[in-house]
Amino acid sequence: MTAAAGDVFPPTDSVGLVQPQTFTFDQPLPLASGNRLENWQLMVETYGELNADASNAVLICHALSGNHHAAGYHDPEDRKPGWWDSYIGPGKPIDTRHFFVVALNNLGGCHGSTGPSSINPATGQPYGPDFPVMTVEDWVDSQALLADRLGIQQWAAVVGGSLGGMQVLEWSLRHPQRLRHAVVIASTPRLSAQNIAFNEVARQAIMSDPDFREGRYQQAGVIPRHGLGLARMIGHITYLSEHSMGEKFGRDLRSDKLNYGFDVEFQVESYLRYQGETFSESFDANTYLLMTKALDYFDPAARYGGDLPRAVSEAQCSFLVVSFTTDWRFSPRRSEELVNALTAARKRVSYARIKSPHGHDAFLIPDQRYEAVFTAYMQRVAAESHAEGAVS
Amino acid sequence: MTAAAGDVFPPTDSVGLVQPQTFTFDQPLPLASGNRLENWQLMVETYGELNADASNAVLICHALSGNHHAAGYHDPEDRKPGWWDSYIGPGKPIDTRHFFVVALNNLGGCHGSTGPSSINPATGQPYGPDFPVMTVEDWVDSQALLADRLGIQQWAAVVGGSLGGMQVLEWSLRHPQRLRHAVVIASTPRLSAQNIAFNEVARQAIMSDPDFREGRYQQAGVIPRHGLGLARMIGHITYLSEHSMGEKFGRDLRSDKLNYGFDVEFQVESYLRYQGETFSESFDANTYLLMTKALDYFDPAARYGGDLPRAVSEAQCSFLVVSFTTDWRFSPRRSEELVNALTAARKRVSYARIKSPHGHDAFLIPDQRYEAVFTAYMQRVAAESHAEGAVS
Repeated sequence: MTAAAGDVFPPTDSVGLVQPQTFTFDQPLPLASGNRLENWQLMVETYGELNADASNAVLICHALSGNHHAAGYHDPEDRKPGWWDSYIGPGKPIDTRHFFVVALNNLGGCHGSTGPSSINPATGQPYGPDFPVMTVEDWVDSQALLADRLGIQQWAAVVGGSLGGMQVLEWSLRHPQRLRHAVVIASTPRLSAQNIAFNEVARQAIMSDPDFREGRYQQAGVIPRHGLGLARMIGHITYLSEHSMGEKFGRDLRSDKLNYGFDVEFQVESYLRYQGETFSESFDANTYLLMTKALDYFDPAARYGGDLPRAVSEAQCSFLVVSFTTDWRFSPRRSEELVNALTAARKRVSYARIKSPHGHDAFLIPDQRYEAVFTAYMQRVAAESHAEGAVS
Repeated sequence: MTAAAGDVFPPTDSVGLVQPQTFTFDQPLPLASGNRLENWQLMVETYGELNADASNAVLICHALSGNHHAAGYHDPEDRKPGWWDSYIGPGKPIDTRHFFVVALNNLGGCHGSTGPSSINPATGQPYGPDFPVMTVEDWVDSQALLADRLGIQQWAAVVGGSLGGMQVLEWSLRHPQRLRHAVVIASTPRLSAQNIAFNEVARQAIMSDPDFREGRYQQAGVIPRHGLGLARMIGHITYLSEHSMGEKFGRDLRSDKLNYGFDVEFQVESYLRYQGETFSESFDANTYLLMTKALDYFDPAARYGGDLPRAVSEAQCSFLVVSFTTDWRFSPRRSEELVNALTAARKRVSYARIKSPHGHDAFLIPDQRYEAVFTAYMQRVAAESHAEGAVS
């Protein structure tokens, strides 16, 4: 949905114009790596109103390239709304007439929260490669401090897709009293060797770009454009299904015949190059490295010798798990591992395997059955939070 | 199988010590691109003996990184035999007691046949990026001239996996009278958009390496090591199945704990980096670019508006098509497209879908059922060529 000229602005099912807010934290944040962040800030957006007993709050956790701008518009001239606008707004699955929705840019990000491109107070220079590696656990801890600041003792639900889903799962284990529902979409309880391998190639592409300058490209006034573009191209192929790429591009040529050279010939090449180029203009390479590492590290079962049912036994909340049939990055089988573990640990879990042609990206794209499942579940969450207030 | 010290050398089921031969051609080779090669040479190995009526010859077509050294050893000290040694030799599926086997390095290659690292007679410098783009059709034409030179009017069989399988299919359409059997393994009648996308990322990785020097790295005395290594890493992930990577590496760490940094942490990262580094020492970047383009271009149905049954109607030979269940690069569905088209065109076709955990690489790896199917088919081919001689 775009706010095209001539349309009513904002659209009636949009949260409308939104403004990000900065939250600054002085208390040090201890990290899984053994490091700590002394001073840090989070860039946050909220949609809807927090109710009197603070029982209607929903936290949105973002994926690899996401940020705090999950819904609405920053400006009437914006061509695109926030990244999950299809699912957050009045009358949408995460209905802002009922919920107070909190979305943030995670630490290590490049959209306003403290990250590698922020100034390191110890040196007066950008952190760059000195920014500590972040983990899903660290993010959840920082989000818990944000919840404290907002006066939210317990989330009605914590919701996220992909890497966001990992944060949701970690919330349920690390702060089991602080959420009533966990919505884990297109995610996995741990990456496979193949997932790690794709991330490693993306990292190598960035780090072997001469303009990476060992992570200090910002001081040098350059960007590892090619490396970051390659990383995005690799990622992009894994977000789409073979089917959806086939439908979208097939073997269509850019011009009417082959040129027998190394310029763009097929439409899919043109599309990928464009994806890579625009991404490398708008995203920070050190953040990309750090986000892929957080993905690789996440493995709550490792704390229990690989025993996932035992790992999830700490959880107290109810779960909705959603997967998509053509998602080969985090396939339904990976969601089902989690569902099986939750079931074995006797947790309340609903599971929907949505038929979709869109691969991993399906979690971002409007789809009738996905919307129906998501809406029904969130209506149950809303009914609880309005009828009973916080259940401790 | 390696010729380890202390073992009998050569192994009894090996073709033993072999010596490559160079064949030089003075007649110009017209290419699909409109260019032509004036003088060119092919590096060739043969195993077994050509019979009196030249009816027992089998042509092996290689895949992206393959070459003429398909079986046996160049030296008793060799640690590894040729790339398809498991399938070529006395008592093996392509039984050298019956067949005269011809393997070559394709034009554009980097193992002795004329290619980008050869000297361009027009300039006295290596061709580099001026070497013409090659197509599967061009390779088949050069192989036909090689057959003429060897006195082979009709191959008993043309055999190949992956990009090699495309050459086999093209032989059956371009020179239908010149082969009796076509064995197309782990291949496809055309790449999908996803396949092209992976090739494009590999090409971009090579071409954006500053040491690529627009393809003239040889004169500059450098190698686009990082780019070629990345290309190989991407390729390698797509050759293996998610399952086999999981079995081989899982989430195993290189040391006993996480180091929270960007050095190698997981075994799979270490393996991939090693694959990338060794490949970039031994393979030519311009050849890699050219081979991926030949893959992208191949599409015999395009000549008939996408009508594959009509495209294959020219074929006169019998077909064996083999696919592997976990091959996601060229999945069984892609082989089945070909089988269905051949069936619709009323061709003789046998099809085996082999259960294997090894992904695309399965076509290179010993496997009982694959060997049984392959052996049985080739025994039928051998019986024909010995009983009847050439069937025109």
